Amino acid sequence: MSDVSDWWRTAIIDMEPGRIALRGHPIEDLIGHVTFPQMIWLMLRGDLPTEGQTRLFEAALVSAVDHGPQAPSIAAARMAVTCGLPLNNAMASAVNMLGDVHGGAGEQAVELYHHVDRYDGSIGAALTAWTAARGRIIPGFGHRFHKPIDPRAPRLMALVHEAAGADVVSGHFADIADAIGEEISARKGTVLPMNIDGATAMIYAELGFEAPLARGLFCLSRSVGILAHAWEQQQQGGRNKGPTPPAYRWTYDGP
Amino acid sequence: MSDVSDWWRTAIIDMEPGRIALRGHPIEDLIGHVTFPQMIWLMLRGDLPTEGQTRLFEAALVSAVDHGPQAPSIAAARMAVTCGLPLNNAMASAVNMLGDVHGGAGEQAVELYHHVDRYDGSIGAALTAWTAARGRIIPGFGHRFHKPIDPRAPRLMALVHEAAGADVVSGHFADIADAIGEEISARKGTVLPMNIDGATAMIYAELGFEAPLARGLFCLSRSVGILAHAWEQQQQGGRNKGPTPPAYRWTYDGP
Amino acid sequence: MSDVSDWWRTAIIDMEPGRIALRGHPIEDLIGHVTFPQMIWLMLRGDLPTEGQTRLFEAALVSAVDHGPQAPSIAAARMAVTCGLPLNNAMASAVNMLGDVHGGAGEQAVELYHHVDRYDGSIGAALTAWTAARGRIIPGFGHRFHKPIDPRAPRLMALVHEAAGADVVSGHFADIADAIGEEISARKGTVLPMNIDGATAMIYAELGFEAPLARGLFCLSRSVGILAHAWEQQQQGGRNKGPTPPAYRWTYDGP
Amino acid sequence: MSDVSDWWRTAIIDMEPGRIALRGHPIEDLIGHVTFPQMIWLMLRGDLPTEGQTRLFEAALVSAVDHGPQAPSIAAARMAVTCGLPLNNAMASAVNMLGDVHGGAGEQAVELYHHVDRYDGSIGAALTAWTAARGRIIPGFGHRFHKPIDPRAPRLMALVHEAAGADVVSGHFADIADAIGEEISARKGTVLPMNIDGATAMIYAELGFEAPLARGLFCLSRSVGILAHAWEQQQQGGRNKGPTPPAYRWTYDGP
Repeated sequence: MSDVSDWWRTAIIDMEPGRIALRGHPIEDLIGHVTFPQMIWLMLRGDLPTEGQTRLFEAALVSAVDHGPQAPSIAAARMAVTCGLPLNNAMASAVNMLGDVHGGAGEQAVELYHHVDRYDGSIGAALTAWTAARGRIIPGFGHRFHKPIDPRAPRLMALVHEAAGADVVSGHFADIADAIGEEISARKGTVLPMNIDGATAMIYAELGFEAPLARGLFCLSRSVGILAHAWEQQQQGGRNKGPTPPAYRWTYDGP
Repeated sequence: MSDVSDWWRTAIIDMEPGRIALRGHPIEDLIGHVTFPQMIWLMLRGDLPTEGQTRLFEAALVSAVDHGPQAPSIAAARMAVTCGLPLNNAMASAVNMLGDVHGGAGEQAVELYHHVDRYDGSIGAALTAWTAARGRIIPGFGHRFHKPIDPRAPRLMALVHEAAGADVVSGHFADIADAIGEEISARKGTVLPMNIDGATAMIYAELGFEAPLARGLFCLSRSVGILAHAWEQQQQGGRNKGPTPPAYRWTYDGP
Repeated sequence: MSDVSDWWRTAIIDMEPGRIALRGHPIEDLIGHVTFPQMIWLMLRGDLPTEGQTRLFEAALVSAVDHGPQAPSIAAARMAVTCGLPLNNAMASAVNMLGDVHGGAGEQAVELYHHVDRYDGSIGAALTAWTAARGRIIPGFGHRFHKPIDPRAPRLMALVHEAAGADVVSGHFADIADAIGEEISARKGTVLPMNIDGATAMIYAELGFEAPLARGLFCLSRSVGILAHAWEQQQQGGRNKGPTPPAYRWTYDGP
Repeated sequence: MSDVSDWWRTAIIDMEPGRIALRGHPIEDLIGHVTFPQMIWLMLRGDLPTEGQTRLFEAALVSAVDHGPQAPSIAAARMAVTCGLPLNNAMASAVNMLGDVHGGAGEQAVELYHHVDRYDGSIGAALTAWTAARGRIIPGFGHRFHKPIDPRAPRLMALVHEAAGADVVSGHFADIADAIGEEISARKGTVLPMNIDGATAMIYAELGFEAPLARGLFCLSRSVGILAHAWEQQQQGGRNKGPTPPAYRWTYDGP
């Protein structure tokens, strides 16, 4: 029997009939005593965050919930419900789309910050090494839409400085992020400000989350907007909603 | 141009370069000022909850995050990462599975409570009408594993009573849920206690969420456990992890 | 050990190291000897189709592969690859959308044909009973785009008549489908011709496939178009492609 | 108007009311005249294959349909239907799992063959360069289960030789695959035979499919097995089927 039970191993949850413990805490001791963001932290890391950590953590979660129906994931969620899908399936089709390009920039930005942190040399040399290995796009900086500035980034930066002032975090990754922004702005000859992915990645790095979790947490956060839009579309109705009004169709460029 | 812009309509988000407003609130006024559960509520309903409502709301969100690797969704998330999927895709495959049977009981329980609420007749007659139309399974009551009792349900019930005492909610749906539990226990000749779906549905009904959102909110909540397990599995490693140890395979019962 | 191996039971595949048998046929006897549509039939039903059955079966599979980028599933597949998703994930997000409204009409049409077949009474009474129970939309008839006629339906109908003439199928469900079309056209006072779902459903019913497989086979067929569009988009490039050109955004109708 | 219509461009499908043309062919000229594998080829490449090409192409499609319930994707499809998901959603959760590790080996093997083909140097040097850049796993060779040999590979190899003899393909990539197999077997001191991914990749390379399509075509092929298992499970019934019998649960190794 043991080899079968051993096939699935976890340090997250322990269960017997009438008993559920998460990370060692009976569930009834958590319900009503920890907040939802604290619960997220506990599930991912095994310990409970301090109040200061929680405040910074949930600022990041709050900031990334939505970017409107022009985002492929949000459009997909809205189209999905008009195809007859319940909310769970609509959410799945949408969260699935938060791939390397749409939802992966936060993860890549954490990797970038760690790369700069560990790099033995100047910030300029570190960035040159990064682009040589990973391509010309610097994750976390610049935005094709929010010019000159993404309003979420300075707000999150202020909260990090506040938290660093209160010794909640070290501020080390905020310094790194600032240095990267300055370096690439100097290279481009124009200010290339931090975007939402760069800002949330800075927070996740400050709080000690590993890079893949920046993507995972973005998925949790964006799931809120995805759900809200799917639900709004369900109330609006519609059947088989396409991307553009039916009159427009598409351009055929084949034989 | 207007017909194209009108094709996508939303009351959730307004955006211009450098400006994002959610439900009428500039995003920078929300970040650091509202909690993550308040943000979820705001996105789904358009207003901000009171402190008492938030407390009850997040108790429901906290309670449903995980049910272990025997749950098909959690197993799927863990298998998915061993197939080489990043966290967003693993979460999608798993959330997708929260269908009528796995994640729909909360939605059905809210529908049941509303049905009983509107029914002109005794609780017994209301339940008979429900089972005649919807089948013998009463959503929200009984559990195949947690016998005699699911530890989450009494804890959530206590919080509802507390909230009703403080006039945060009316307690009306808690009464209905209690009455249903008594009626079906009397019919079965044995106590059939409320389960997690029945308990969270009671809270969502008390707070005025419509039935489909009970499923949607369950998906948000369970996404936390799904993410935690996917991440743990990613750290454990493994390639193409099957459901049972390789030695066991399956029973072939064909020609 | 037996209870673990018994947990997964199948009559589809038997396997030992160095041996794979599908529906009782060693895989090496199938490769190069059966066509892909015959293999699909074998996997779903356990026997091999005759040549006549295969011909009709693959006509249905060929007919439903694509309906262009205005279809939510095709649009989703194309958007997905611009989010950085590999083809498997793009296909998943898209196939997921083939729900009750987008991909379920074939299944519903088979159900309708069986309902009419079993109904003790006139075709008119059968349809009235159907709409009373299932709502006003008659699956398989009418099309919001292909007016007056969907070019696929008469072609498939001709193949069914040809097959019935050669005793490959009985033609019974073709007669039922014709009778439904006449009845609802008479009711509407205008011709409401069979659409692709009605036509493929007629073929699947003639061939003895159960209703849910009409949806499943549609998913297989449409997966071809989904893959083709995802691949074409991957070659076109693009990042985070939204539903409309960026200049259009959406209409905000909130506070 | 043109910028909106131009936002979606395709050479695959042209459509007006009453008219559908795929790759320039009116759909009614394809239905009943091309086989399903020919249709797949046409959609992906724009031309129709010869009879010899079709035969080889569908041998690859037939060979990869299933690998049983121990495969994570098949297990997921079966679990999904017991969660209440219709077939489209079950297929999506499963196809989604055909990621780099589970469904990507064919794509990687085509890349390997192209790498060896273009490499200026011995086969040994080419493989050394590959493993230096891509890691120690050689895609397409060896199998953890089918020892000593996967029965599908020699059968597919025989068909490629047959096709090369008839000038359907050049046999160039078969030679490369053979050379790789010999080289790595010599290195390991034991025969490391070609597996199904290596064999289908060889066929796809011979037929001129680009590497990502080897994954896409695997997804199409495996979708057949996924659908067959989902449907069989739907008939078997069950609710919230976990990976192992309920009695076994999992091993908790946390605090």
